[in-house]
Formats: sequence, C-alpha cells, structure tokens
Amino acid sequence: MIDFFFEPVGVAVVGATPEPHTAGFNLITNLTLSYRGPIYPVNPKHDEILGLRCYPRVSNIEGPLDVALILVPAPAVPQVLEDCVAKGARGAIIESSGFAEVGSRGKALQDRCVAIARKGGMRLWGPNCMGFIDTSKGHVFSFVIPEAWKEGMNAGRVSLIVQSGLLAAGFITTLMGNKTLGLAKVCSIGNKCDVEETELLEYLLRDRATKVIGLYLESFMNGRRFIELCHSSPKPIVILKGGKTPLSAEATVSHTASLAGNDQLITGLLRQANLHQAEDFFEMIDMARTLEKDFRLQQPPQGRPRIAILSYSGASGIVTTDHLEKHHLTLARLSPQTQKRLEELSPAWMPVKNPVDYWPAAEKHGPSLAYKHGIKVLHDAPEVDGLIVHLFAGFGIWFLDMKEVMSVIKGSRKPILFWLIGPEKGREPTRLTLEQEGWPTFHEIHRTVRVMASLFAQSRQKERMPGIPSPGLSIDPSLKELIEKADRNQAAVLDEFDSKKWLRALDLKVVDEAIAQDMEEALTKADEIGYPVVLKGRVEGQVHKTEAGLVKLNLCNAGQLRSACQEMLNLKPKPDFFMVQPMLKGDLELIAGVIRDPQFGLAAMLGLGGIWTETYRDVAFRLVPLTQKDVKEMVSDLKGEALFKGYRGSKPVNMGALSDWLMKLGWLAMTYEKIEQIDVNPLLIIDGEPVALDATVMLTQDSKI
Amino acid sequence: MIDFFFEPVGVAVVGATPEPHTAGFNLITNLTLSYRGPIYPVNPKHDEILGLRCYPRVSNIEGPLDVALILVPAPAVPQVLEDCVAKGARGAIIESSGFAEVGSRGKALQDRCVAIARKGGMRLWGPNCMGFIDTSKGHVFSFVIPEAWKEGMNAGRVSLIVQSGLLAAGFITTLMGNKTLGLAKVCSIGNKCDVEETELLEYLLRDRATKVIGLYLESFMNGRRFIELCHSSPKPIVILKGGKTPLSAEATVSHTASLAGNDQLITGLLRQANLHQAEDFFEMIDMARTLEKDFRLQQPPQGRPRIAILSYSGASGIVTTDHLEKHHLTLARLSPQTQKRLEELSPAWMPVKNPVDYWPAAEKHGPSLAYKHGIKVLHDAPEVDGLIVHLFAGFGIWFLDMKEVMSVIKGSRKPILFWLIGPEKGREPTRLTLEQEGWPTFHEIHRTVRVMASLFAQSRQKERMPGIPSPGLSIDPSLKELIEKADRNQAAVLDEFDSKKWLRALDLKVVDEAIAQDMEEALTKADEIGYPVVLKGRVEGQVHKTEAGLVKLNLCNAGQLRSACQEMLNLKPKPDFFMVQPMLKGDLELIAGVIRDPQFGLAAMLGLGGIWTETYRDVAFRLVPLTQKDVKEMVSDLKGEALFKGYRGSKPVNMGALSDWLMKLGWLAMTYEKIEQIDVNPLLIIDGEPVALDATVMLTQDSKI
Repeated sequence: MIDFFFEPVGVAVVGATPEPHTAGFNLITNLTLSYRGPIYPVNPKHDEILGLRCYPRVSNIEGPLDVALILVPAPAVPQVLEDCVAKGARGAIIESSGFAEVGSRGKALQDRCVAIARKGGMRLWGPNCMGFIDTSKGHVFSFVIPEAWKEGMNAGRVSLIVQSGLLAAGFITTLMGNKTLGLAKVCSIGNKCDVEETELLEYLLRDRATKVIGLYLESFMNGRRFIELCHSSPKPIVILKGGKTPLSAEATVSHTASLAGNDQLITGLLRQANLHQAEDFFEMIDMARTLEKDFRLQQPPQGRPRIAILSYSGASGIVTTDHLEKHHLTLARLSPQTQKRLEELSPAWMPVKNPVDYWPAAEKHGPSLAYKHGIKVLHDAPEVDGLIVHLFAGFGIWFLDMKEVMSVIKGSRKPILFWLIGPEKGREPTRLTLEQEGWPTFHEIHRTVRVMASLFAQSRQKERMPGIPSPGLSIDPSLKELIEKADRNQAAVLDEFDSKKWLRALDLKVVDEAIAQDMEEALTKADEIGYPVVLKGRVEGQVHKTEAGLVKLNLCNAGQLRSACQEMLNLKPKPDFFMVQPMLKGDLELIAGVIRDPQFGLAAMLGLGGIWTETYRDVAFRLVPLTQKDVKEMVSDLKGEALFKGYRGSKPVNMGALSDWLMKLGWLAMTYEKIEQIDVNPLLIIDGEPVALDATVMLTQDSKI
Repeated sequence: MIDFFFEPVGVAVVGATPEPHTAGFNLITNLTLSYRGPIYPVNPKHDEILGLRCYPRVSNIEGPLDVALILVPAPAVPQVLEDCVAKGARGAIIESSGFAEVGSRGKALQDRCVAIARKGGMRLWGPNCMGFIDTSKGHVFSFVIPEAWKEGMNAGRVSLIVQSGLLAAGFITTLMGNKTLGLAKVCSIGNKCDVEETELLEYLLRDRATKVIGLYLESFMNGRRFIELCHSSPKPIVILKGGKTPLSAEATVSHTASLAGNDQLITGLLRQANLHQAEDFFEMIDMARTLEKDFRLQQPPQGRPRIAILSYSGASGIVTTDHLEKHHLTLARLSPQTQKRLEELSPAWMPVKNPVDYWPAAEKHGPSLAYKHGIKVLHDAPEVDGLIVHLFAGFGIWFLDMKEVMSVIKGSRKPILFWLIGPEKGREPTRLTLEQEGWPTFHEIHRTVRVMASLFAQSRQKERMPGIPSPGLSIDPSLKELIEKADRNQAAVLDEFDSKKWLRALDLKVVDEAIAQDMEEALTKADEIGYPVVLKGRVEGQVHKTEAGLVKLNLCNAGQLRSACQEMLNLKPKPDFFMVQPMLKGDLELIAGVIRDPQFGLAAMLGLGGIWTETYRDVAFRLVPLTQKDVKEMVSDLKGEALFKGYRGSKPVNMGALSDWLMKLGWLAMTYEKIEQIDVNPLLIIDGEPVALDATVMLTQDSKI
C-alpha cells in the first residue's frame, strides 16, 4: 500500500536550504505552504530554515516521521535511506537525479538504494522525479517553483502519472496557468525504482478525487497487470507512450518478433486495454480534460458517431469534415425537422445542411441569437451524437456572453466541443467562461475532432465483454511427446517439419505433406497428390528455406519436379529428405503468431502476410489468453479488414476457425513456457478456412512445463 | 492583369451604410482608414456617409473609378455591375453572398454577373468573399471589423490566398492578434467566378512584398497551370486543401479512377509541384511563417536531416524523437568535439548525448548561461542540420532574456525552432522576443517537428530538375489503325483483347497469348505454350472478367484446361473465343494507368497491385508528361518503395523500363485525346521487367486526334 505517501504524519525535507532559486528551497517552501503536519528540514549546515528547526540528520528527528523527501546529491542518498530506515520512516521520495538515467554507475547506486529500502521495509518513490502534487489535500511534495502553483492550483478530477522528472514541472505549471484544467493528483515517478505506474494506477482507480487518469510512460514495469487494470477500469485513461523509435531493422528469424519490436505490439495491447492513446503532451491533456466532463454519449445506430458542425464559415466546416473522416466520425444527416428549425433563422436563399453555415443567420439576427438557436436545435436533434461549434470571439457583437448562450442546454448533455479562435482579449475570457461551464474549447480543428473521437471511443468501452478463460484443452499425448522431445533436444528453433507437428497436435489445419527420401519417391507422391505441387527440402534447423533454395513452388509436371529435386540435391548441405505438398491457392495470405514480450508477457499477433507484411506492417497484437471478441477486434484493427469479409466472390473468413487458431496458439504458449515464439507464415485462407503452409516454433532453455 | 485591384484610382463602396456593426459600415470605415484615393460611398438612402458624399448609383459618380466594392444583396448585383461597366470601372470585388455557394439559382445569378463583366471588359473578384488586405500599401478592401486590424496590421512577407469568405476574417484577426505574423497580402477569393487562385498566384510570385505564399483551396480552376507555376516557383508555397472526403466507394470500371477519386491524385500532384501540404489552418500558417525566415539549410549527407534537441527534460526529448521519426528526420549523432564542448557545463555524472538534457547544466550554471552555451555549441556543430530547443518561460531565473541568449548566433543561421511552454505571463513576452528576433516558437512538440521537416523539404526543392518534354514517339501505323478503328466503332470501353493491342503498338511488353476458337484449339495452344496456363474467355466489352467467370488461372494439364473451357462454354453469353496465356509468376504486382482529371488534366498513376490495391491505396500520381525523375519520385512516394529494390533475392525493378511504360502511356493519352483512362492491372514485374497481364482503355466520344 502506498496510500501513506498521500497522507503522511511527519515529513522530512532532506537537503532543504534557505537559498532562494534552488530546488531545496522550493521544496521546503512548498511544504510549509501546503502541509500541515510536522515538517523537518534536514541539513547539517543550518539550525533553522524558514523558521523551522533544522536537523543535521534524519536520525536526529524526534517527532513522528512517515515520509522523507530527499534532494541531496545522489551519492549521499544511500546513507540518508539508512537513516530513514533506522528512524522507521514508511517511505522516501528521492527527487535527486544522477541514478539509472545517467548510466550504469547511477544504476548501481539506485540498486543500492532499493536494497536498503527493501531490507528496511520502506517504500521508495523516484529517484529522478518531481514528487507529487495533491490538490484535494493541497499537498505539494515537489520542488516545483512556489509561484507556479500558488495561484494556479485548481482542484479537479484529472490525475496524472508522469514518468519524467523535470517535464512535469514546466508542463504542469503551463497547465495551471490555463486556470481551467482541474487536476487531482500529479505524480512524477521518475526512474520508478520501486513505486511504479501500475501500483499508482491501482491507487488512483480507488481514489475518489480522481475521475480521469492521464499517463506519460516510456516503459511498463508490470505490463500485464497494467493492461488488466486498464481493461476493467471504469475511469477513462489516456496514455502518451514515449520512445517509439523502432528497433534496428536487422533481419530476424521471425516476422512476429520484428513486427513486435516496433511500436505495434504496445499499440495493440493499449487498444485491447481500452486506453486512449495520445501523441503529444497537450493532446493527452485535451483528451483527459474532455473525458472528465459529464457528457452523455448516445450510441450511433451505424457505429460511426454522427457529428454536426455549426460554423460561421464554409471553409472551416469543410476542413472539419475532412478531419471527421480521418477519425472515423461521420457528418450527421440532418432530419427535415432539424433543417426546418434551423431555417427559422436562416435567410430563404441559404439552404441549411451539415456543416451548418450559420453566418447569414448571425448577420440577420445577431450572433447571440443565432448561436443559441443553432446549438439548441442541433443538441436536441436525435440524429446528432455530437456537436462541434466554431466560434470567433473578438469585438463588439462578436464577443458573446457564452454563459447565457449555453444556458439553452439543460440537464444531461451531448458532447459540444468548441473550436475557438479570435484575438487574445476576446478569446481568453470566452474560453474561461466556456470551460467553467463545462464546454471544452480547442485552438485547432484537428485537435477538436480528435478529442471528439476519443469521447466516443470511451463510450464503446462500456460495451466490452469481460475476458473469458482460454479454451480448457487437455494436453494431447502427441503434444506431450513433442514437448518431451523438445525438452530432451534443447533445440532453440524448430524447423517447418517439426513446427508443423505441434500445430497438428493442436488439431489445427496444416498443409498435407508427403515425405520422400529421394527423387523417385517424390515423383510417386506427387502423382498421388496431383499437380501442381510444392517441393521443399528439409535441412534440419534451416528456417530461411526460400533464401537457401529449399522451396520450389507451382511445379506442374514430373519434368519440373525432377529438375527441382535435382537442384536441391546439388545444394550443400543437401536436404535430409523432401516434402511434397499440394500447391494450394488461397484467397488471403495471413500471418499469425505468439510472442513473449519482456514487458507484457505473452501476446498473439495476426496480420496480412506475403511480401507486404514488412512493407505495410498491417498487424495487430493482443495479450493472451484471447477471447473470440479479441480476435474480432484484431481483425478490425487491420487496414485490410475488408478482405476478411470476402472480395471478388471469395468466401468470408471463418472467424470461428480463425479465433480457434489464435486461441490455441496462445494456449500452447501459456501451457509450455519454453515457447518464446510461434510464427505461422503464411496462414492461408482457403474457402474461408485457415490452413498453415509453414510455421516456426522458437524455444528457450530456461523453464519447463 | 489584375494589378489594378491593388493600386486603384478611385474606389466605390456599393452598399455602404452609416449603421454600426454592419458589413457595409465596416467596409466604408476600412476604406476611409486605409485608402488615400477617391472613395465613393454608394447608397440611395443616404446623401453622406462618414463625411463623404454618398451617390445613389455608381453611374452618378463623377470622379475616376477603377474598382467597385459591392456589398448589396445578391439579386441587386447585376444592375450594379451594369452601372460599373457604364462608368468604365476596371474591376469589381463582390463581397456579398448568395451566389453559387447557395445552389443553382445563385449559380445562375453569378453566371449573369460574369457575363455582364466579360461583355463590359471588367474583371470580377468574388463573390462571397472578404476582398483583400494589403499591408504594404495599408489597404483594407474588406468588411473585416476595423478594430481587428487597426492595432494588428503587421506588415510582413507572407501572403495568403483563401478560397473562403468568412473564415478569412476570424482567422486573420486571430493571426493579427498574435502580433508576430507579418502578412503582406491576404486575398479572400470566395467563389472565384473570374479572378482565381492561379492568376493571383502568378501576381504574388511577381509581388516584391511577398516572400512566402499560403493557400487555402477547395478546388482548382486552372489546375495544370497552377501546378506548373508552383513547380518553378522560387518562393515557398504552403497549401491547405479542403474537401478531401472520398467520393462514394461505389464500384467503378477502373481502379485508376476509383483511386484518383479520393484525395490521392491531388496529393501526388501537389507533391510534384513541391508544395508544402498542411492539414489545418494554423499548421499552414506555422509552416509559412517559418519558411519566411532566412534560415540557411545545409544538405544532410545521408538525405535525412539531422536534428539536435536541447531540452530540460528527458521525456520531452523522447517524445520529440518519436515525432522526428514520423517525419523522416533523424537525431544528429554528436561528434566527440561537440559532446566535449557541451560537457563543459554539464556535471561529470551526466553523460551528454542527443537529445541533450541540459537541466543539470542549467541547475549548476543558471539557465541563461546553459542555454547560451548549448544553443551556440549545437548551432556550430557541422553534424547538426537543425536544432529544436525546449524552453520553459516562467518565473524568476526561468524567465530568460532570449534576445541576449540568442545573441550568440551571428550571421547566417541554421534553423532553430523552439517548443515554448510556460504560464502566459512568462511565455508570451518570451514568444514575442523570440519571434521578433526571427526564431519561431511553437506550442506543441508535433507541430515543431512538422515545421522543421517542411523547412528541409523546401531545401530539397532547389535540387529539382526542370521538366523535359515527353518522348517524341511517332505514331506507329499499327497504332494509327487502332485509333481509326476506335473512331469508327465509337466504343467507350475496350476489353482486354483490344486494349492490349494498343500497348503492343507502343512496343510495351504484354503477356503472350494465343487465340483459340474452341476447346481443341485451346488444348493445342496450351501444349505449345507449356503448362501451367491461364485461360480467359473473351466476351466483347466485358471488363469484369473474373466476376463473370471468364478467367481460370494456373491450369496444370489438359484435363484441367478442358473443364475450364467447358465451364466457360456454359456461360451466357458464352465467350466469342478463348485466350490461352502462360501462367506468369512475377516478383511484384503493380498497377499503372493514366487518367484525365477534370481539374488538372492528364495524370499518370503507379501503385502496388493485387488484392491490396483498394486496401492500402498505395498509389502515386503525377501530371503527364513525366520525366524519369518523376517516375522515381512516384516510386519513392509509395510505402512499398523497398519492394522495388528487390527482396528475398528477387531482381530490382528496371526503373528505365518502368519509366518507359508510364511515359509512353502518358504520351499515348496526350496524343489521342479520346483516351479518358488507361488501366494496366496487373503490371507484373518478372525478373525486374514490367509485363502487362491485363489492360483496359476507356474512350470518350467528344474529341479526336
């Protein structure tokens, strides 16, 4: 439990100083301004700081002490922690830098700190962090500049967890300067050597002051638990994931691994967890502050939220429409009733359609009446799920009393977001009024639309089914045998021939193949199978078969087969034996697999295969175990989703069979922990049914069933 | 010539009124405040407005009159124009609405206006527009609110052309409120019934007050000329294209047409013209105002501009890096010398790498010295092409004198862009100082990076080769015959059999095929060709062959061929004859074509083919005639670019042969104007060489060679 950090009895400030413009001064100042319990400055150079008795060491403190805030140079921190343990403190927030973030020596120092704390039963927060601000209690346990928060601390319901030290300060100060973002708790977790995002998230999910959670994270300490928490969270969670640079594009054995190595695995899992994903800091905040509003979201009948635009300009209506398309929102088709009501204020020559260009109405009746009427009518229209209003706040009659205008909306409210422009002196008071009334405003069209889309993504979340357990398959004797063989052999990579045995043992459909020890046998088998055939040469452990010349496709007759065999027999090493397979023609070439991710654990992958796999990277990831719904969502994550429904007369993909495939692969990897990866490529769809043409199972040596 | 609009002798304001808060009042007020020549209010209800003699009609004006600004209701405009013609005015700016933008009756009214003007030798600007603002002469020929520009008119070198009426006002007013965007001319062209973007662009390219041009356009009146002007423009041009919503996704005969129907054709042509493409209004402005600065751009040796990041936060450095990747910029690798110089101020425990986290340096030496040193060192480093600085402007020592800090940069300057945050009262003065010193600031990281990328795109522009004429092929007799036959037959769509004749006549490689009148002949031909073969049935004019059951692939022997023939013979209508083709296996399946676009004329298309074409829409367009360089750029526009270089041992695509294909298709369509479209799908790459497997030529009946 980390609750005590937020309500400690007794706080020490180790490294407090009376010298202005230093972090140590800011920290002790913030404590005196914000915390009412006992405060103990600790600094051997002073007897008193800001009128408080100053202690040379933590061990000299006499009163009760729950938390130490530490700002001394990194090398001095372990001794401070020893003192804290001795004193019986429950936790320490290390706000100093110079630990793991600066390299291996810093990492060693950090590890020492963790060891001391663990041994002493103490929790650590940080290091390399800004601590936290808790607006509900008014606590500022951070060295953020006092001027920054003294005027701007606006209690609210958005809490942030930020894996960063210094950004938090500048950023939060900027937000506070806006006066309209209500923050609950802002937690800077820095290097998160002990207290990390998942535990804090758990705390914030319980925290009654927190309604929406925003996160900036570069890594996940406890990925699977994190995803599970998010998945079941009734509170909206927005995340900005930093560090998306793809790993080096070196060739790897497995497509699954190279596709997972870049950002797509995490993106898929975050989607699985129903997180809102932002791409920049202010975008994260814009999403969070809007999700915090109590908008009533209705479910659009066709799935795509229907948006009305009320504007004073055709051009901005058009650009807004362009952005709607990008975000899978759609323009609402206004009913004749709605049109008629809107036309009450529009001149006869101006036809009303969506986007609604209400300039002529504003010119005729004044902008105040026009906006009132337009907003009221579009808000009331059942065919409108959300409304984007373009507002210019400037001079004279174009400086509206928006509190009065918005008073037309009573009770439960559909989302109405404003694209607000105008010169500062008109815009700023209008922004404040609208925000205070609960109507979010934005400075750019693309952001307005992006945030509208995130609102509806949130509403979809509530539909979600709970996860169900993986299919309770018993281990088939043939599978057991394969596992035992793998354990014996200590093989790291199983080639196609062996890998496909595992799939067959799971009762998954794999291309038929006949083994042939020599050319003559291959010819006989081919006759039995029927031309055209595929010839593969088996060299144990060789997984790059195409490049090694061990695959010949579409052999149409004995002559072609014979020369293919001969070519392979000339290779070095020559194949152990041949595999003859029918040349299957499918409607769709997929790739499927499972991979054990170091941060999140087992994840399954599904994507479009063939030569395009690496080009378009059209793949989706989800944590294992999967439900049928997960597999459906994986398909809908793909740009090539439409191909699954059948095209040019081909059958749609049997989703039950596809789910079975992915669920069983996941189940296998869960059951046999040695499995690092399974790569099924291609997984061909023939008459709607998935059939594996090739597969690779990769194992580690460090665990067993 | 439209120059007279910007320097008229005598301006009438038709529809001037003394009633405040009306457009007619604003317009006459703006004239009196900004224009020094004779001003004539025209309104039969008044004798005098703002101390000026008011005329009942334009025909009553006695003095010289070049331009009439018209704001009377739409139905009254034709009469006003008649009066203007009678008076000998050279042009009119119709700022009233109620024309083509409101429907067919408005369009008819607009056409009447154009007819009157054409007949009278007068030019029209608008209607449904805001006129223009010219800061160099101080002219405001627009009904924008006077308060909006009186304080904000900041002369500068960015000119705008905006296809919009009212947006211009709110938007420009907002920009003026920022005090830092220097505008030269802002032209609102509304419905552009006569004066349109291309003519204005031509004027602005000559205009000495204009250095950078920004455009908001929804359509192109003279697309080809527009692209040509942009292509050769030494001035940077930024465009926001509104109206990207794809056309309805109904099935069309041609892939080329359905792919062109959405935004991709225009995007390709704008890229060909070296335009900077923005996606939102402020993004357009952010790009334009930065391109206006005199940055010195060095060419990165590896093609990707190398960016250094100077930050006070690891997290914002990481997020900036993520955005660099998205925009094809890369992190500069700092040389040992640069690192050493940076380390002069950094504490020993803090290793310096890019992104440079200079917080410890700022803490040790104060932010002013740290920023000065960091900016100087990174600006001087030859391995850095551009610098992004993260700056927090807040309180106390974090409120830097940026004029002083930036004084370390002398003479020619690399681009340095600031991501500036902080509470308003600190941020705003810092922004003003930086902008006045010529250093652009941005509020969001993604925008900062996007604009940096656009700067380097501009530098690439200068490398461009001029266009060369199309290959001067003479018309081969066999082609002449085909053309004559097409003229005779009045066919609108040529099927595969006929279409491929055209390609052969151009000496382009097309799959061999043997004609067979019946099953027995098909069997004989297949024996000659060698199995596997493809059987196609020819039904004249049928282009949806697969759907009609007229294509059977990969037939491996006589038995398979026989049943395929039989199936086709059972169809209604049954095929006229069979085509037997070898079953070719290529390394890459492309799609190529030409299309006559109503706005831009002939354009060529190249894309990745197969079932993925409609899914990923990975296609590129360029105006015809093409150069080899254009074709190379088309390939580099494709996400699948890497596949052209060979993959898994396949040969790279012969770029000369591919260029030949596209250039010849373009040449053909230029030569024979009846060609509406040519669709070559698939264009297979076999051993690096393009071979067409299927093609469709579409013709119109309204023109000839």
